[in-house]
Amino acid sequence: MESRNIRLAVIPGDGIGTEVVAEGLKVLEAVGTKIEPTHYDLGAARYHRTGETLPDAVLEELRGYDAILLGAVGDPSVPPGILERDLLLKLRFEFDHYVNLRPVKLFPGVDTPLADTPAEDIDMIVVREGTEGLYAGTGGAMRRGTPYEIATQESLNTAYGVERVVRYAFEKARSRPRKKLTLVHKTNVLTYAGDLWQRTVNRVAEEFPEVTTDYCHIDAASMFFVSQPERFDVIVTDNLFGDIITDLGAAIAGGIGLAASGNINPERTAPSMFEPVHGSAPDIAGQGKADPTATILSVAMLLDHLGRHAEAAKVEQAVAEDIVERLAGWAGRTTHEIGDDITARVSG
Amino acid sequence: MESRNIRLAVIPGDGIGTEVVAEGLKVLEAVGTKIEPTHYDLGAARYHRTGETLPDAVLEELRGYDAILLGAVGDPSVPPGILERDLLLKLRFEFDHYVNLRPVKLFPGVDTPLADTPAEDIDMIVVREGTEGLYAGTGGAMRRGTPYEIATQESLNTAYGVERVVRYAFEKARSRPRKKLTLVHKTNVLTYAGDLWQRTVNRVAEEFPEVTTDYCHIDAASMFFVSQPERFDVIVTDNLFGDIITDLGAAIAGGIGLAASGNINPERTAPSMFEPVHGSAPDIAGQGKADPTATILSVAMLLDHLGRHAEAAKVEQAVAEDIVERLAGWAGRTTHEIGDDITARVSG
Ligand SMILES: CC(C)[C@H](C(=O)O)[C@@H](O)C(=O)O
Ligand SMILES: CC(C)[C@H](C(=O)O)[C@@H](O)C(=O)O
Repeated sequence: MESRNIRLAVIPGDGIGTEVVAEGLKVLEAVGTKIEPTHYDLGAARYHRTGETLPDAVLEELRGYDAILLGAVGDPSVPPGILERDLLLKLRFEFDHYVNLRPVKLFPGVDTPLADTPAEDIDMIVVREGTEGLYAGTGGAMRRGTPYEIATQESLNTAYGVERVVRYAFEKARSRPRKKLTLVHKTNVLTYAGDLWQRTVNRVAEEFPEVTTDYCHIDAASMFFVSQPERFDVIVTDNLFGDIITDLGAAIAGGIGLAASGNINPERTAPSMFEPVHGSAPDIAGQGKADPTATILSVAMLLDHLGRHAEAAKVEQAVAEDIVERLAGWAGRTTHEIGDDITARVSG
Repeated sequence: MESRNIRLAVIPGDGIGTEVVAEGLKVLEAVGTKIEPTHYDLGAARYHRTGETLPDAVLEELRGYDAILLGAVGDPSVPPGILERDLLLKLRFEFDHYVNLRPVKLFPGVDTPLADTPAEDIDMIVVREGTEGLYAGTGGAMRRGTPYEIATQESLNTAYGVERVVRYAFEKARSRPRKKLTLVHKTNVLTYAGDLWQRTVNRVAEEFPEVTTDYCHIDAASMFFVSQPERFDVIVTDNLFGDIITDLGAAIAGGIGLAASGNINPERTAPSMFEPVHGSAPDIAGQGKADPTATILSVAMLLDHLGRHAEAAKVEQAVAEDIVERLAGWAGRTTHEIGDDITARVSG
């Protein structure tokens, strides 16, 4: 495996997506990974030009890659939901990315908005389900635009879908020193779905006696992220709660500029996809203001997923060192400059 | 109105609910409000004794009061959802508490977990919808307990339900100095419900030209609560997002011990209900450790709702003063002691 080139599909997408992905690729090449990148022009520009979001032929082509690197998708010129549903979420669903892996880790030296919180208190991994729940997209509207309109959204949860992600989370928890898994849900209101999630956690827990399990309502969890982040080690949660809590996680761990994610297909029946947690940020696009670190850390996750553990560690190490420099007052760099600095470190 | 006694239904509920409600009542009486309180024994104990959560006859009786003061509901000995759905949420739904009003305000002197955040940066009001969305309770499970189980939850949103709460929020925004209203939702994924919410805000906005409107996804909003809370003045959002964001709001504004709420029926076709945002906290129940301040501030909201503005202001003032004492190092008081201290201030 080490010798074969990585066939990488690159989807820069919209806004700052293109800027940060360029830096990610630079680091990926510098760390010594032999990659064959192919760029795909998908996102708002293509949608406006051709009306296409993700043509079937492109989807099938993407299936053949070892992995996908994605920047960000979404633009105010496109009605909400179109690029999200028909491009980003379509990739997650079609490629069965049922694990959306999002580390929430405070690098030493990074400023957290939380007062008096030592870096080691914020070190968790959120295992967000990626293919079900309210993201299924089912629902509808009736009598739209009238005073009698009703709009519905449905959360779909299956034993199949919940069990596989819960099992993944238990394995993750077992591999970490604290071996603690917290289910985050809202079982007291979403009683049907909550019951399925809780029963599944209880059942799978029997196979992992070394893992401590815990439960926390999503509302309380949001509170504890701020007041007692050290409560959490591995979190498993549904698609929507995971979306919310990982942005909150990014906020407490130094900001969205550092938050990486992997959309993982653990059985490798399709390529996994790596992307920063942040969006396309149209307000700062094209100005060199975006921090590419989240994308570079997503590249590290990509390397890890492909078995290139040494290279992954090298990228992470370079980021950690770069962050210490920032602490020393070396801020105000452009997207390129941060990318260059981290590239220099991994090449060294 | 000033001369008539307030007929108050009191539902202490479970855990610390009974402890904090006792202090709330003490303050209410001391501030000079003539009240006739009637206690209702509802919650886990009654459920275990009789199997009842909220008998129809009790519900009808409650309808006759001027207001309801509730402590907290829920106990680990009762399966999740039973007391929540059949007691707390039933009251909110039956009494059409479509506005769940939750101020997020940092009192001067209160410690926020956020570093470098001046008190004036955290001063918002969340107008949470209280009778629709995923709280409708619709959904179900099929093939429960088998590998083929499917569990669903439905979010129900109506033009009627959304418009009335949006209108309330605009009025609230207009009455405040900044006059800014932010819709928090997830329109890019929950496209049907999001479309209804966004269109409704856009339409009602035309009637409130002096109010600035804004939109924020729930994930980004969670981030901004931590990183830029000053972005928000009045927030309007659905039932579930409101649940999450107000716990997060409590966390940044000094903790759940201070967070008050009102379940409001603005047309007064049924009594409104006031309760602390916190739950029954069985882990600290009966130990005098609970902070009754959230309940006491809920009492202030109750007074305000009933037109006793001077008394409401007096209670708020007493709390603000008490909080300054805490800052001066006078911590470690019991539930009773805090209640007594605030009572002394309003009686003075
Ligand atoms: C863009 C949006 C559809 C997406 C999501 O909600 O999953 C994003 O917020 C994320 O977290 O990756
Ligand atoms: C107890 C629970 C049903 C309730 C809710 O979710 O509304 C609580 O969390 C709240 O915020 O008042």
